[in-house]
Amino acid sequence: MTATLPTIKLLETPTTSAWVEQALGDLDTILLDHSHCERKAAGVALNLMFRYPSSEKLVRALTAIAQEELTHFEQVNQWLERRGIPLRALTPPPYGAGLKAQIRRHEPERMLDGLLISALIEARSHERLGLLGQHCPEPELARFYRGLMASEARHYGAYWVLATHYFERSEVEARLSALALVESELLATLHPEPRIHS
Amino acid sequence: MTATLPTIKLLETPTTSAWVEQALGDLDTILLDHSHCERKAAGVALNLMFRYPSSEKLVRALTAIAQEELTHFEQVNQWLERRGIPLRALTPPPYGAGLKAQIRRHEPERMLDGLLISALIEARSHERLGLLGQHCPEPELARFYRGLMASEARHYGAYWVLATHYFERSEVEARLSALALVESELLATLHPEPRIHS
Repeated sequence: MTATLPTIKLLETPTTSAWVEQALGDLDTILLDHSHCERKAAGVALNLMFRYPSSEKLVRALTAIAQEELTHFEQVNQWLERRGIPLRALTPPPYGAGLKAQIRRHEPERMLDGLLISALIEARSHERLGLLGQHCPEPELARFYRGLMASEARHYGAYWVLATHYFERSEVEARLSALALVESELLATLHPEPRIHS
Repeated sequence: MTATLPTIKLLETPTTSAWVEQALGDLDTILLDHSHCERKAAGVALNLMFRYPSSEKLVRALTAIAQEELTHFEQVNQWLERRGIPLRALTPPPYGAGLKAQIRRHEPERMLDGLLISALIEARSHERLGLLGQHCPEPELARFYRGLMASEARHYGAYWVLATHYFERSEVEARLSALALVESELLATLHPEPRIHS
């Protein structure tokens, strides 16, 4: 495995091969955490729809995203069932809370930050599921990860498009750069337990 | 229109014809409120999945419900678009908050109450969409409402099945009777504005 991995647009720093090794060393926990990630992603999309119920474009795009995340959640849960792994709660890594803490409290900044943080999380998921699809030693599971990659890419694209629909492009780009730095910093130290966003 | 309307199992009191008249008098607002109801129903299912992430049967059933509610949300929004009604927030009637206030704070009672309140809301939606399907003067819209009824019936059935899976049947029945009384009391006075649960 090479030390440098392909960089995804939006992300400040690419994932290290140390994460890949940690993940491949405990695929069962990665699948379980992945299930939680898909459910959380559906929840985040739904919460944004609740907060901005009259923003037509946002509501339309996020309905589609929430539906897709729920379908993935179901698919990951089928993988867990097939492997005999019971559903259970996992302590989350500091990633999600660390990003959420960056959301400014007043509108319209709150909306911009919410959209961009979701874009970054989806971009990171796209990158990491891609790495699992490339390096996972179980061919069927690797195929599953590669199959999910396209949606994750569409999702981060959709969040980006929404951000640029409701805000000036220069403002979006400046804020995205700042948040992307934080996102990379949150991943700079590998979490002791294997997680999608460790 | 007759004063007595068919009673749905679970519900303590059937909907009055006064509600039907109020709803038919402002179908645009009813559609807009219905959109909010579908989104909220998806949110409630997702929140229960968040609270009980290791309850396999619950997670599986509520994933399917959340997906269906999102599909209905999308369909209702298409109706709004076709009629040129922009999405906007509506002040909710006291129904949802009134029911939520009945949820006991400790487990496992909290889970039972959450499931039964969802069952009651779905049963009431089933009854009322059925009334709209029967009395709506626009044939295509009436057909749409009748089409949704089957899912609402499946949903209240699913919540009931989950309640009896995790709790003793006698406990479920006693609690359901108590909550059904509150549900009917909350609807005893017609809300001044047309709402699905006014």
